[in-house]
Amino acid sequence: MRILVVNVNTTKSITDSIGEQAASVASPGTEIVPLTPSFGAESVEGNYESYLAAVAVMEAVRAYPEPFDAVIQAGYGEHGREGLQELLDVPVVDITEAAASTAQFVGRTYSVVTSLDRTVPLIEDRLHAAGLSARCASVRASGLAVLDLERDPQAAVDAIVEQAVTAVREDRAEAICLGCGGMSGLAERVVDRTGVPVIDGVTAAVTIAESLVRLGLKTSKVRTYAPPRPKEMKNWPPA
Amino acid sequence: MRILVVNVNTTKSITDSIGEQAASVASPGTEIVPLTPSFGAESVEGNYESYLAAVAVMEAVRAYPEPFDAVIQAGYGEHGREGLQELLDVPVVDITEAAASTAQFVGRTYSVVTSLDRTVPLIEDRLHAAGLSARCASVRASGLAVLDLERDPQAAVDAIVEQAVTAVREDRAEAICLGCGGMSGLAERVVDRTGVPVIDGVTAAVTIAESLVRLGLKTSKVRTYAPPRPKEMKNWPPA
Amino acid sequence: MRILVVNVNTTKSITDSIGEQAASVASPGTEIVPLTPSFGAESVEGNYESYLAAVAVMEAVRAYPEPFDAVIQAGYGEHGREGLQELLDVPVVDITEAAASTAQFVGRTYSVVTSLDRTVPLIEDRLHAAGLSARCASVRASGLAVLDLERDPQAAVDAIVEQAVTAVREDRAEAICLGCGGMSGLAERVVDRTGVPVIDGVTAAVTIAESLVRLGLKTSKVRTYAPPRPKEMKNWPPA
Amino acid sequence: MRILVVNVNTTKSITDSIGEQAASVASPGTEIVPLTPSFGAESVEGNYESYLAAVAVMEAVRAYPEPFDAVIQAGYGEHGREGLQELLDVPVVDITEAAASTAQFVGRTYSVVTSLDRTVPLIEDRLHAAGLSARCASVRASGLAVLDLERDPQAAVDAIVEQAVTAVREDRAEAICLGCGGMSGLAERVVDRTGVPVIDGVTAAVTIAESLVRLGLKTSKVRTYAPPRPKEMKNWPPA
Amino acid sequence: MRILVVNVNTTKSITDSIGEQAASVASPGTEIVPLTPSFGAESVEGNYESYLAAVAVMEAVRAYPEPFDAVIQAGYGEHGREGLQELLDVPVVDITEAAASTAQFVGRTYSVVTSLDRTVPLIEDRLHAAGLSARCASVRASGLAVLDLERDPQAAVDAIVEQAVTAVREDRAEAICLGCGGMSGLAERVVDRTGVPVIDGVTAAVTIAESLVRLGLKTSKVRTYAPPRPKEMKNWPPA
Amino acid sequence: MRILVVNVNTTKSITDSIGEQAASVASPGTEIVPLTPSFGAESVEGNYESYLAAVAVMEAVRAYPEPFDAVIQAGYGEHGREGLQELLDVPVVDITEAAASTAQFVGRTYSVVTSLDRTVPLIEDRLHAAGLSARCASVRASGLAVLDLERDPQAAVDAIVEQAVTAVREDRAEAICLGCGGMSGLAERVVDRTGVPVIDGVTAAVTIAESLVRLGLKTSKVRTYAPPRPKEMKNWPPA
Repeated sequence: MRILVVNVNTTKSITDSIGEQAASVASPGTEIVPLTPSFGAESVEGNYESYLAAVAVMEAVRAYPEPFDAVIQAGYGEHGREGLQELLDVPVVDITEAAASTAQFVGRTYSVVTSLDRTVPLIEDRLHAAGLSARCASVRASGLAVLDLERDPQAAVDAIVEQAVTAVREDRAEAICLGCGGMSGLAERVVDRTGVPVIDGVTAAVTIAESLVRLGLKTSKVRTYAPPRPKEMKNWPPA
Repeated sequence: MRILVVNVNTTKSITDSIGEQAASVASPGTEIVPLTPSFGAESVEGNYESYLAAVAVMEAVRAYPEPFDAVIQAGYGEHGREGLQELLDVPVVDITEAAASTAQFVGRTYSVVTSLDRTVPLIEDRLHAAGLSARCASVRASGLAVLDLERDPQAAVDAIVEQAVTAVREDRAEAICLGCGGMSGLAERVVDRTGVPVIDGVTAAVTIAESLVRLGLKTSKVRTYAPPRPKEMKNWPPA
Repeated sequence: MRILVVNVNTTKSITDSIGEQAASVASPGTEIVPLTPSFGAESVEGNYESYLAAVAVMEAVRAYPEPFDAVIQAGYGEHGREGLQELLDVPVVDITEAAASTAQFVGRTYSVVTSLDRTVPLIEDRLHAAGLSARCASVRASGLAVLDLERDPQAAVDAIVEQAVTAVREDRAEAICLGCGGMSGLAERVVDRTGVPVIDGVTAAVTIAESLVRLGLKTSKVRTYAPPRPKEMKNWPPA
Repeated sequence: MRILVVNVNTTKSITDSIGEQAASVASPGTEIVPLTPSFGAESVEGNYESYLAAVAVMEAVRAYPEPFDAVIQAGYGEHGREGLQELLDVPVVDITEAAASTAQFVGRTYSVVTSLDRTVPLIEDRLHAAGLSARCASVRASGLAVLDLERDPQAAVDAIVEQAVTAVREDRAEAICLGCGGMSGLAERVVDRTGVPVIDGVTAAVTIAESLVRLGLKTSKVRTYAPPRPKEMKNWPPA
Repeated sequence: MRILVVNVNTTKSITDSIGEQAASVASPGTEIVPLTPSFGAESVEGNYESYLAAVAVMEAVRAYPEPFDAVIQAGYGEHGREGLQELLDVPVVDITEAAASTAQFVGRTYSVVTSLDRTVPLIEDRLHAAGLSARCASVRASGLAVLDLERDPQAAVDAIVEQAVTAVREDRAEAICLGCGGMSGLAERVVDRTGVPVIDGVTAAVTIAESLVRLGLKTSKVRTYAPPRPKEMKNWPPA
Repeated sequence: MRILVVNVNTTKSITDSIGEQAASVASPGTEIVPLTPSFGAESVEGNYESYLAAVAVMEAVRAYPEPFDAVIQAGYGEHGREGLQELLDVPVVDITEAAASTAQFVGRTYSVVTSLDRTVPLIEDRLHAAGLSARCASVRASGLAVLDLERDPQAAVDAIVEQAVTAVREDRAEAICLGCGGMSGLAERVVDRTGVPVIDGVTAAVTIAESLVRLGLKTSKVRTYAPPRPKEMKNWPPA
């Protein structure tokens, strides 16, 4: 099967890193296709950039010329998943929800450790809308920007571990979700230093997307995710 | 003061109608400026179109060359308000929230009557995210598409009244919100036939926007709505 | 239009202060009529006094001999608003709800800073009953009694600022509501020292009451706020 | 021990009926003292009357000249219990909460069957505030006014049974609370015709009040129910 | 009447202590019959042991040869109460729920102080399932194992008091529930040192069980607690 | 990898059916080991039987002599999963939660169609405890007992389809979970007749268990699922 893994940032090196991470858990026979949006912010850290990414991700998927079996939206707390579900019959998996959903199977509660404080509300809102907030102990910010994660992975690990340890002790989290697509690849080191299960959204999403395909499940089309009605679109998509 | 009232649909006649409705309750000295997005769907009825409208509304506001005091996003249940709040210091009012917030002052519970069944989940999600769902008795669909409202206002009134009456009787609503920007102007006729207060989001939003300006309030910038960080934007905005 | 602004305390100087504050944001053509109850506690700080104030406010409004267009109940977290809504067709606005409802338009979350610790539960309960608690980050007490606010406004500002700053930092509030009718007039100084929007319930309520009147909205009479049924009242109202 | 059972209505025959009902389950050695407020509505069916009853009940208790061990407020969904708790050290039991709390021990869910439709919101709000709404399946109205219950007990039983049966079948209630002080004495007949446990608030409250006294428990005074602070009361209590 | 009080632990000395505590508040004419399960853990502190205790308690009750009027399950946060309710017509009272339900009558909020940290989630889940969590301020662990409570009651009191004081100050609890059957008998000493009402689940349960019997209430059999259907049981009960 | 799939019923033919269903989606290299408990009810339909099954499932897993990588508890709405998680380091997946978690990826809401009405509350409670109830539209009963499903699969499909169609139309479900281990194998026929995604818990659980193993995740041991403390067990396990 072929799974599209779409970065929400327009920074190609993040796409590469996400793609490698995704490929590392893919089953034999699964082809991972990493995509970078053709427009938008180099890193998505707030609502304006996130709404733009939502649209850019949808256009990137629409522009992909080959058939595929599932799509992963690789942004943590970002807008847009419902739009993709309208456009497609195949399963769409958001990494925020993939991580939370997976975490709930290995701990009674989970916390998310994300990048900047300003992205905390976005993640909280997405988890709430997805019906996955009841067992969320907290969403905590490491204080590092998305691009900082790439530049200094060791500092990233340290900052994430600090918040993860606090989440376990004070917020009573029993598992940790790495709340940023750019954190893919750091999970193992965080496990070593916290002793609790650590979930990376990208790899979790790959296993979920594969599972949905294996189960023969498609996105429900009876109401929320029904295809857009035929209508006139003004000046869109951009040339 | 000057208030921008931004349609989410690219249909100019809807913008005109919204603008007239807004002007009808504006205080002396308030200038209503109706805007139509430069790209997007002729009518917004679902997530794909709504995400696109979110971005188009933001670009329409960014492109507006004159100073202004507040912005109204005139789409019911649409995405995007948080993005505008990041971009602006002046108050931003979404008509979905304006209607609900107003309804709660005149009835213990309220219901929303919207256009198509597929837009019900979007409205429910926005009310939930806005913290305004606790007293929402129901969101009901009239079954009429946005553009049908324009074409046959009498049929629209009939369909809305039918749902409103059911909402009052079965869902125990005590007030009704007209859940579509295109319904602006129908409120009086629905009041006559239901006997409960009927709230139109556009006019409610005008009074709220004026109130916020008069109170000297601006959007909080400490976290969620902090301005976007300076960063490289790829291929955006479109030429 | 004429708006009655009813103090819940029987201290006339607080009524004067509330009246001035209300008048400061009233539109040209709006007459503010401050009222003091004829019986009850000099300051309302708890349930016994609050229930008594609820009844005293209702009687004060019933005794007012001239027509009016809206009523504001100027007590924070106090009982009684629903009773007034039964007695009247015109809109009734409680300042607790006016402040919260307004705060939600300028911040994702808000905190209330009130007077004594013992009034915190009353405010929490009112916000909950009004469906406005989902985005309430916290209700905090400054530790100052209602009458202390009048006696030493500078100490009041200091105590309120301390709690407001904690609310923003620890409770993640993005706006602050001044949780006491007697705090009217302190908002500007709290803004200067916290940098977040500060909402005073009295002024917020004036703009909301005016808005409801301008929109032609009246209290719904279909169920909760239907007029009392005709029946025999024993020894009431008091001579 | 001596338990005051305070009617919220000023109709003496209802007080008598409540008193008899209370006495029927009291332990040997428990003296039931029924009280009627000295002012207020002959029957309480709405917020205005309920707020007035709250104050009248408090004054009736304050005026009672002998010592007592507990107080029962015998009105369903009425305001005021928190005020009594401030004034007294001895336990205060509201029949709304007594019935719900008892029902939860014998059924997974319960419904309340009350008198008029307009009292449904009051009961819902009280259960919510008391933290007893999670297992409330519904609050249903029989359509009979409080005084009708006295006038035609057989019609009352029929109307209550009809709603109770619907609550069990459609709302999935497993127990029924009789939602009106005036329904005391009808429980047995409703049991016979529905087959589910039926709880009368007055008798439930007597056993709870006795239990609290036997356990040596008093109302907590650390915050919400601390005694009113000493202060000047204007024109109160009435001569 | 005869009430069975079933320990969840297989340690006989705890059964004795629970039985004495229960007898201390029983009415004249009430016979308390303490039972110890014939299999299971010496002390129940976690899910595996708790599920086993659930079954052992049910078998202990089934094996009791005489008639009885009510059953108390004397384990805090343990599984099993619903199973007993299926097997019996007489009321079944869980001490976790008895304590919470009682606490709510004397304080606006309550906290539970239990033994080990690992039992906190069990208690939280039971309170949630029982619809009694809305006013639960916190569940706190003293850090002492069940058997430690017996060995060193003074250390137990100290550890409980420390958590209780923190619950009142920081979590805003207004009453304290002793969250372990083995804590029976310590209530008075905790009251002396905290000044808030302290509820012991065993004694609270005795008064509730007596109340239910006096009110003539039985467990509802319409759905959740209907008797098990006749069917083949393999190798059960154990010889 | 090796996955134990443990039936909750002691009926061997159901174990066989569950095992076949599980094997049908297992990856190459995954060995499915179906287990039948050595004691308990032939079919589990209520709390007494479910608590017994919880213990029997745990003993069946403890008695299994070979190493394994994950365990699936194949009972819908049954007790016990937390106990298994204490006993094991490897992932434990409950089919109730597996189905719900999977359904949320393909529909905004889901309904469960189960066997008897009396099992509805158990399923609701499990979903609630698992934090998966926010998007559950309803739990509906087909009215067929577990063993009836085996005896007449066509009647089972008809009864399930009827409830599924009602769930989609009236409860606004967008996906259906088959709420009984014994329904495994009926999914395809229900899909054909409803047009919405249908999720079977057993197959969903297999893909989730495999995913957790592939991601290297183990059950968190920091609090809720820490191993039982060493202690004396009386008369257990049975000889």
